[in-house]
Amino acid sequence: MKLYIGNKNYSSWSMRAGVLLAAFKIPHEAVLLRLDMTPGSAFYETLARITPAARVPVLVEDDGFAVWDTLAIAEYLADRHPELAIWPRDARQRARARSVCAEMHAGFGRLRNVCPMNIEAALPEVGARLMAEDAGLRQDLARIDQLWSEALAASGGPFLFGSFSAADAFFAPVVMRVTRYGLPLSAAAAAYCQAIEAHPAVAAWVLDALKEQDFIPEDEPYRTARA
Amino acid sequence: MKLYIGNKNYSSWSMRAGVLLAAFKIPHEAVLLRLDMTPGSAFYETLARITPAARVPVLVEDDGFAVWDTLAIAEYLADRHPELAIWPRDARQRARARSVCAEMHAGFGRLRNVCPMNIEAALPEVGARLMAEDAGLRQDLARIDQLWSEALAASGGPFLFGSFSAADAFFAPVVMRVTRYGLPLSAAAAAYCQAIEAHPAVAAWVLDALKEQDFIPEDEPYRTARA
Repeated sequence: MKLYIGNKNYSSWSMRAGVLLAAFKIPHEAVLLRLDMTPGSAFYETLARITPAARVPVLVEDDGFAVWDTLAIAEYLADRHPELAIWPRDARQRARARSVCAEMHAGFGRLRNVCPMNIEAALPEVGARLMAEDAGLRQDLARIDQLWSEALAASGGPFLFGSFSAADAFFAPVVMRVTRYGLPLSAAAAAYCQAIEAHPAVAAWVLDALKEQDFIPEDEPYRTARA
Repeated sequence: MKLYIGNKNYSSWSMRAGVLLAAFKIPHEAVLLRLDMTPGSAFYETLARITPAARVPVLVEDDGFAVWDTLAIAEYLADRHPELAIWPRDARQRARARSVCAEMHAGFGRLRNVCPMNIEAALPEVGARLMAEDAGLRQDLARIDQLWSEALAASGGPFLFGSFSAADAFFAPVVMRVTRYGLPLSAAAAAYCQAIEAHPAVAAWVLDALKEQDFIPEDEPYRTARA
């Protein structure tokens, strides 16, 4: 089984699937395609051969069967591995985990637009300015903090539904954004960010991201070069 | 169990959940909240009491437990009703159904922006103009046509994965958009639209939408009044 991903530093959707597979120790080969959005690039040429959706991440079985989109990948893995608690075992906790993942999947557009994931960057001044100027960002952040705080209070932590689940893999890139842009959080949400950063699957992804030392201008609205 | 929805004429996300429940004959009470996006409106006041996500649709159990977002609602219903083929029974068909639903859930932004769902309206002139002017819309439509055509060819139809599944509930509002705006389709995709319109759960939703006779200016970029 292969997981095609983009740059670990920039590709938030790739991170969700990659961290999920690593956290549950599901054997796979990761194939990194550099995020080159030029039409006809190697990125698009390779994707065109494996998936009609032309996006990363995509999980490809040995016979070529492709599963795309992180939510579908999470469900596919949960289907194939009932022995793993990819989703919480309790039916209502599972429903809530899926609700917050789906909310994330289609929402928080302002955070995603103005704070693109950039694991190696330290952009607290940008974050402070955006928080002062951007009501949509403040609204997204308030909802994220509420969502995390409520889930953690209900489960007792350290992860959203107690032990690490697909929901945490989904919010790991959000943790990358809020910490790299230095966005202000409640104590409970800040502790959750620390727990996510300390998880071995996340820490390994971050280490790989730092090793990339690539610079993709389309993903860099706030830097002109690597620091 | 209650399903809170917005106007049937306009609310595409509500339609997905409402059609899914109806198609699988799952008993529930539908509660329609008029889509009034004014801060402090009855719409927001009611939602604030039942869900932190403040969006329709939301499924609420008798004891107040809320499941929001259509994808999570579909999974919750599939979990609770293993006797119903809400997702295809075959594991790979099921994975593919989830891939296309998740792709829809976070994608096709241009179609969703420029062709908001408006079941009672006939807007073929608008659709023709948009198709001529808007490359993003043409790209979204090409991918939708490809996605439908491939699934129908693989399953034999009449629905995406043979018999009606959650994937068809997810694409029912897309069918409403492409038909009301008169967007050009391949023969296979056009036949699929006819099958969707003829499904009793869709036909009943459309009938209810036509009875509403409401007019919400925020959802009407192309009309100043009902025809």
